[in-house]
Amino acid sequence: MDDDWLEERLNNYGQRYRIKKLLYKERSPFQEIEVVETWDWGAMLLLDGAVQTTERDEFIYHEMLVHPPLLLHPAPRKVLIVGGGDGGVLRHSLQHPVEEIYMVEIDEKVLEVCEKYMPSIAGDSLRDERARVLIEDGFAFLEEGGLKFDIIIVDSTDPIGEAKKLFSRRFYQLAYNALEKNGILVTQSGSLFYQPQLLRDVYYKLSSLFPHLAVIMMLVPTYPGVVWTATLGSKLYDPFQLTPEEWLQRAKERKLSPKYWTAKLQFFPQNFPLLQKVLQGGTPFAS
Amino acid sequence: MDDDWLEERLNNYGQRYRIKKLLYKERSPFQEIEVVETWDWGAMLLLDGAVQTTERDEFIYHEMLVHPPLLLHPAPRKVLIVGGGDGGVLRHSLQHPVEEIYMVEIDEKVLEVCEKYMPSIAGDSLRDERARVLIEDGFAFLEEGGLKFDIIIVDSTDPIGEAKKLFSRRFYQLAYNALEKNGILVTQSGSLFYQPQLLRDVYYKLSSLFPHLAVIMMLVPTYPGVVWTATLGSKLYDPFQLTPEEWLQRAKERKLSPKYWTAKLQFFPQNFPLLQKVLQGGTPFAS
Repeated sequence: MDDDWLEERLNNYGQRYRIKKLLYKERSPFQEIEVVETWDWGAMLLLDGAVQTTERDEFIYHEMLVHPPLLLHPAPRKVLIVGGGDGGVLRHSLQHPVEEIYMVEIDEKVLEVCEKYMPSIAGDSLRDERARVLIEDGFAFLEEGGLKFDIIIVDSTDPIGEAKKLFSRRFYQLAYNALEKNGILVTQSGSLFYQPQLLRDVYYKLSSLFPHLAVIMMLVPTYPGVVWTATLGSKLYDPFQLTPEEWLQRAKERKLSPKYWTAKLQFFPQNFPLLQKVLQGGTPFAS
Repeated sequence: MDDDWLEERLNNYGQRYRIKKLLYKERSPFQEIEVVETWDWGAMLLLDGAVQTTERDEFIYHEMLVHPPLLLHPAPRKVLIVGGGDGGVLRHSLQHPVEEIYMVEIDEKVLEVCEKYMPSIAGDSLRDERARVLIEDGFAFLEEGGLKFDIIIVDSTDPIGEAKKLFSRRFYQLAYNALEKNGILVTQSGSLFYQPQLLRDVYYKLSSLFPHLAVIMMLVPTYPGVVWTATLGSKLYDPFQLTPEEWLQRAKERKLSPKYWTAKLQFFPQNFPLLQKVLQGGTPFAS
């Protein structure tokens, strides 16, 4: 933190936000946790210096991580969230007709801090009777096994430190094994412009397991490079079989009122030449 | 410039690029001109501290400013470019079957510097026999009048200093008057996330003149907030009348090989809820 500006670095790029004040800063057993009050984005959470979410734009990332898999599944009853300590994925998942959601977050401190400084993100979801919040390593949770899920959403930090194993082939295999035969996995897969190799790596690991894949692209102003990706792997349901009208129909039946997600946005990234370039092994800007 | 990092500020936001070296820095009669060699983006041009273009990602902004209006017009013969000193708009416009392109750039120094340090952006276009390059104030050029154009493209800096008048109602009226009865105007209209009021202002000024409007949205990694807009006003041709297949057909007939533009990308922004929110008078992130 430098005067009243905060900077996030990603390789040769940095983004800076003017801040009103530091609300919280402490090192947990797993990471450095900071919450700052920004001028433009309300309260902002950073883990190890990387922006995780803000009060004002959280809906973009959370809607785009949650609604595509949960709408693709005609009857998502059991959901597992790995990470997601700010509660945003949980809150959005509870808008669907689920029966039970496990949220397995390794760092209790993240939960506490988010509830205190950015309570609108989790809302009442942590106290919802369908929510089972476990303070536990998501990798170990899946290794133990025993439970089956319709949907698994991996809302992790970047593949550094503790989160690294959440991007491993072994982890995806464990997740695959924990999914019902019509189950769906979604994981965040990084910045299109600044982490193309991460996206490609996730995409190819998932493609060796799941017959159906889709890249979800979202525009999150507070993430480095803005254009952020998540990758969806599906055992049975083909995300490209549904028409925009069918997606919209499902969203209406579930009484969703998204602020960012639209049925047509779902289909947008597959038409995006820069994404195709990345998946074909290049960088978006090679000549 | 701070050590080997360069920063662009826009209100409460800053973006920083790691640079290898400063190639050029001088104040012209109109603005401060800088060219830096970056690690990620090749040579980068800045005017008054704002990134204008880079060698690696220039194609995104230039394709999206040029191809929508020139493809929408079935026979674009005469084109006027206001600004555009780096030559990128000129180079891309010459890919269409035009007869004559006037490029009216106020600052000779920008032309010289770009030709020297980032020659790939203009390519051979400045020496093309269809190009008429004038060092002149674009506003005064249109006030003089006398010429008529099929297409006018305003490739200006942000509305600060000299460029401010290029966003005025009077300027748009002059441009309207200089267009043939089936003419099309395009102007850059700023950052969706950080300049929503600018976009709205341009949109409503153009809507009082042109019966057909479209917002073009592009993802330019080196512009603040990445999501950049241009606004298109058309006297006769409705951009939403053409199907994606018809756009693509025109692009094929003209033998274009765009790296970013696609027929479907054209239609994307009108489905984008955050854009709708801005045009309806809000900010993208108000609750």
